[in-house]
Amino acid sequence: MIRALTLLTDFGLADPYVAEMKAVLLAEWSRFPDPFPLPLLVDISHALPPGDVPGAAWLLGRVAPMFPAGTVHLAVVDPGVGTARPAVAVAAAGQFFVGPGNGLFGFLARGGPVTVVRLDNPLYQRGRGGKPAPTFEGRDLFAPAAAHLAMGVPLHQLGTPSGPEALGAVDGVSGDRADGPGPTTEPALGRIVWIDRFGNAITDVARDGPHGTRLMEGAEVAVGSTAVAGPGVTFAVGSGDRPFWYWGSGGTLEIALRAGDAAARHGWQVGMAVRRSAP
Amino acid sequence: MIRALTLLTDFGLADPYVAEMKAVLLAEWSRFPDPFPLPLLVDISHALPPGDVPGAAWLLGRVAPMFPAGTVHLAVVDPGVGTARPAVAVAAAGQFFVGPGNGLFGFLARGGPVTVVRLDNPLYQRGRGGKPAPTFEGRDLFAPAAAHLAMGVPLHQLGTPSGPEALGAVDGVSGDRADGPGPTTEPALGRIVWIDRFGNAITDVARDGPHGTRLMEGAEVAVGSTAVAGPGVTFAVGSGDRPFWYWGSGGTLEIALRAGDAAARHGWQVGMAVRRSAP
Amino acid sequence: MIRALTLLTDFGLADPYVAEMKAVLLAEWSRFPDPFPLPLLVDISHALPPGDVPGAAWLLGRVAPMFPAGTVHLAVVDPGVGTARPAVAVAAAGQFFVGPGNGLFGFLARGGPVTVVRLDNPLYQRGRGGKPAPTFEGRDLFAPAAAHLAMGVPLHQLGTPSGPEALGAVDGVSGDRADGPGPTTEPALGRIVWIDRFGNAITDVARDGPHGTRLMEGAEVAVGSTAVAGPGVTFAVGSGDRPFWYWGSGGTLEIALRAGDAAARHGWQVGMAVRRSAP
Repeated sequence: MIRALTLLTDFGLADPYVAEMKAVLLAEWSRFPDPFPLPLLVDISHALPPGDVPGAAWLLGRVAPMFPAGTVHLAVVDPGVGTARPAVAVAAAGQFFVGPGNGLFGFLARGGPVTVVRLDNPLYQRGRGGKPAPTFEGRDLFAPAAAHLAMGVPLHQLGTPSGPEALGAVDGVSGDRADGPGPTTEPALGRIVWIDRFGNAITDVARDGPHGTRLMEGAEVAVGSTAVAGPGVTFAVGSGDRPFWYWGSGGTLEIALRAGDAAARHGWQVGMAVRRSAP
Repeated sequence: MIRALTLLTDFGLADPYVAEMKAVLLAEWSRFPDPFPLPLLVDISHALPPGDVPGAAWLLGRVAPMFPAGTVHLAVVDPGVGTARPAVAVAAAGQFFVGPGNGLFGFLARGGPVTVVRLDNPLYQRGRGGKPAPTFEGRDLFAPAAAHLAMGVPLHQLGTPSGPEALGAVDGVSGDRADGPGPTTEPALGRIVWIDRFGNAITDVARDGPHGTRLMEGAEVAVGSTAVAGPGVTFAVGSGDRPFWYWGSGGTLEIALRAGDAAARHGWQVGMAVRRSAP
Repeated sequence: MIRALTLLTDFGLADPYVAEMKAVLLAEWSRFPDPFPLPLLVDISHALPPGDVPGAAWLLGRVAPMFPAGTVHLAVVDPGVGTARPAVAVAAAGQFFVGPGNGLFGFLARGGPVTVVRLDNPLYQRGRGGKPAPTFEGRDLFAPAAAHLAMGVPLHQLGTPSGPEALGAVDGVSGDRADGPGPTTEPALGRIVWIDRFGNAITDVARDGPHGTRLMEGAEVAVGSTAVAGPGVTFAVGSGDRPFWYWGSGGTLEIALRAGDAAARHGWQVGMAVRRSAP
């Protein structure tokens, strides 16, 4: 079995914080009698906007399932660090997740059975006098727990069993926001959940979901007042003047502009609704 | 022999794409009976401007030869993903290269004999129903191929043998562009091929090339209307007011400004010609 | 014992330089008869502002002690590359440091006994004809030395023993700068030494130092004309209108704004003094 540990934060790479967490991982592993082979460290991203818990949840929910069984995901987007939200470790779908119970891991409970513990075992806590710094639990509480999970320490040793409610609720993208006037009164098929570097707008309209079936044969959708034809197959579709939609590599509807930045051109943002155009 | 796998993309580090490719690498490796020791993952860069194939080719051509024999380079700068350009794996100079046949690897054929295959063996393709997503062949086609090369699978198993024409041609920096009025009518010695973070302009005028010999004893060159004296030896040369040239660590002529940003000061960009000043 | 090698530079991640150094590390390791398991590579940061030696020293001084014994730190922030400043390798507190003797490692000598060598053994130098490129000693001089230290080569083999004066002096943040008019004439408790991505201002006022004791029970401090109450415990303190101070995870006084960017709001910069408010 491959041992891998991923990191996902909103810390950026200019500050000491990511390196401090990695230093703690190595320091913990160096206490094991035969620490080789070490788990492989993989950075998922440290470029989340500060405090963007819904974005982090989307990113992790997309990427995590592709990693092998046994992978440990250490995810710290935690604007409420040190406050009453719980600190948790979770086993779900053969993998492990460690971080704040602020909604970041809420998607796990929606996907199947989960086992949750609160990280309250002082054996796996670090910091001054064994007390985690209330402003950096990523280093003193989450990293040590993740380090031990990656070395095979059982989840239940890390703390007190808890229910999925300890994962918290995301106060994020949901509901049917006003998106300005549009050419249609159809209900939303879904929403834009991510805009990537190329300006492609990724939505949560799943190809395998109820709306996906309706869209299979080709259909025009709309974001705000902009109509979007599709589906295209590659990015080399259309005139470069009008956006088109396609089934993205994550299994949901995406919208792009040939050789251009669709989101910037049209002012699209995360949270905007995607509707079916009126026929 | 060291097993190493490098990654070079224009994906940035904020989106899920680089992590998805790494997840696929790990998932492929986890299928091997004894996957340890894993190949070492090295990020060359993910900060290429979107679609900058010539820039990616320059970067890879500079860095790759420094890696040990057997290294696998997974390079995905691929604005035509999913279109007719081939997907290739290449053996050249004792190393392996996997990515699009869009000119990115054209430099390999200019450097010596290459062995090329088209990645058409479905055994090494992933995606929904084994069909690579046409918008993300980096994940579904290139990463699995690179993963297997790094574990010792022979190149010829990955697909159909092909000629070097499958590497494609770069539609990039070449020819003798107009660069505005200059103090000289000398033909170009070469061009600016990269501008680094410090504002140093790196050219393709090789120290070991025909022009290099002429410049050995010291000579003034010019970019546009700006004269550049040299050669200097370190960055601590000159007055800080005038740029100077030196033989850079990559073996070609570079131009810098002492404690300053030469390219920003003078408005230099990739593609501009470097000429010898009229005597 | 875990073998780990960290990298800290001001090179950014868009240019070839960091990848070239890693390529050299791998190439050196591939010459060893049994190079596995390879040392773990950990990037501390490559986002230092160009030439920011004091910032690099602060970052390394904060992060390095958290790594396990035996870790090799390869640090290259070196605006004087190729000039007379020495190239050094240092053993201090059970770890190793390789880079320029320009003050970057000065903090090591202040922390206890150090062993210093100048990197003048040609056996561990690379480059054209074995001569390091004067503009990239990070690749040709520091990386080979660090590679060998990480494989167990003794420090004294790398060059000539030297005294701590070879570490150089930082020409950085010190003294009692003018910071404009303030509400107090108290002497400075310390200074802002780092501003992080969240806008938190990290100072060098140590909790365990003489000023720390005075501030334990709560006290108002000031930066320029802005009063700062504290200590808070988590970031969820205060009204969001006024900054507050707290004991940061690095053991020094920090200043933040609830759900805001304290430094941007108040125009704070590295080097500004923190004073105790007049009672």
